[in-house]
Amino acid sequence: MILDGKKIKEEILEKLKEKIEKEKISATLAIILASKNEASKIYIQNKRKACEKIGINFEVYTYEETVTEKNIIANINELNSDKKITGIILQSPIYPHLDFDRCASEISPHKDVDGFTKENIYNLYMNKECLMPCTVKGIIRLLEAYKIPVEGQDILIVGRGNIVGHPLSLALTNKNATVTLAHSKTKDLNEKCLKADIIISATGRSNLITEDMVKKETVVIDVGVTRENGKICGDVDYEKVKDKVRYITPNPGGVGPMTVAMIMENIIEAYERGRENG
Amino acid sequence: MILDGKKIKEEILEKLKEKIEKEKISATLAIILASKNEASKIYIQNKRKACEKIGINFEVYTYEETVTEKNIIANINELNSDKKITGIILQSPIYPHLDFDRCASEISPHKDVDGFTKENIYNLYMNKECLMPCTVKGIIRLLEAYKIPVEGQDILIVGRGNIVGHPLSLALTNKNATVTLAHSKTKDLNEKCLKADIIISATGRSNLITEDMVKKETVVIDVGVTRENGKICGDVDYEKVKDKVRYITPNPGGVGPMTVAMIMENIIEAYERGRENG
Repeated sequence: MILDGKKIKEEILEKLKEKIEKEKISATLAIILASKNEASKIYIQNKRKACEKIGINFEVYTYEETVTEKNIIANINELNSDKKITGIILQSPIYPHLDFDRCASEISPHKDVDGFTKENIYNLYMNKECLMPCTVKGIIRLLEAYKIPVEGQDILIVGRGNIVGHPLSLALTNKNATVTLAHSKTKDLNEKCLKADIIISATGRSNLITEDMVKKETVVIDVGVTRENGKICGDVDYEKVKDKVRYITPNPGGVGPMTVAMIMENIIEAYERGRENG
Repeated sequence: MILDGKKIKEEILEKLKEKIEKEKISATLAIILASKNEASKIYIQNKRKACEKIGINFEVYTYEETVTEKNIIANINELNSDKKITGIILQSPIYPHLDFDRCASEISPHKDVDGFTKENIYNLYMNKECLMPCTVKGIIRLLEAYKIPVEGQDILIVGRGNIVGHPLSLALTNKNATVTLAHSKTKDLNEKCLKADIIISATGRSNLITEDMVKKETVVIDVGVTRENGKICGDVDYEKVKDKVRYITPNPGGVGPMTVAMIMENIIEAYERGRENG
């Protein structure tokens, strides 16, 4: 069965739209773009569309290559103290002469709708309330939408990056899953995949997960993104795996749309907490 | 074969003592004790002995039950700005009317020789330089002392507490182990133990790890501490397991001494970084 992230995304956006209208929420997302990366433009376009659809204001600050870290940080500090700004995203990657971590760490944790600042990661680690990294949250929400349990389940995460694999291992442990975090140095990946109830692959290596690594009860979540001959493909050999397993995400159309939906949800969460705290 | 934490501890202390004498290091550990807990007294005594042995100054600030959070935080702030203080430990547990996390978070990350503040945990998560939690560091150092590799090895950690299991999963992933983090909701623990190259148990449930859960190649690290009829015992059914496996820590006498040695090492690390940064 297909885990239809596109459909679930639309349902979530519809609910957020109703909420925004009913509660007269006036939220604004500010994105800082300091790169010529083509994929970034598409990602920003997707966020813009979602914002427009549900009624969140949207601003992009675009910088040429002459920009300095000081410029970016000054912009972030302005946005931090601007009461009409709800969420701030520094679009990754940024020009190579700039340090992404140093710049992004300036974003107020209350406006960090990407969920990657120290404060939010530490709270995730401590299993406390936080703005959760959007892809992590999107995967959990997608499993919930299809009533796939995680508590007590054996979940194999392949890939330990700081955007998905690593924070996902914290979030799923918090949800009482037994998580194994695999990576390029892991031995016997086939066997580990066959033992897992849920495989979540986030490596960017196409065709890493093949039909001999799954069984009919397996749930397969494909977070990988590789571009091959102009076509986007994931980590999973989708055509051969899809009819063999219980659930699988298409890619594109699975986790990607969920990530966008969760950015919108984080913006509304940030808005509501901001209102509570004056 | 026995992983003799006591012996390795003595070797580490000996080296630190030489270094302190040779480099004329003047470091001071300050411990804040706000509880009547009997075990805490023993732990503090162990730290005092180690400090005295190698030439680190030692101060304890003891509070009666009338103490407030404000008092503790004021004490921490004084110690933070006192240049002669190198390391600060808020001995856990503290009186129940006080919030441990709130108080401990006031400790400067540069003097946080226990390695539990937000800054140090975040850096551990990001695989950056940090003062590492002492028991975590002690386990890694004990494995290193016996030349037991962790890279690419399947390590099962049982227990996801914030003192050992959880930060250990970050540290061992950083060292390229494939980590599975098991806990009370984990199914098929026996089978998972039999699959693991290294089992590290930190639950405080005595006799959780039994002889049917290990094979002759297994390395068993026992971090559990339970008191039964006045006797300290670990998570492992030591008498029956010890002759069946390749390596095992006694308990007491395995990880515990290593933790004390690593506090001393963290103090010297904090001292050296403080000197570098003026």
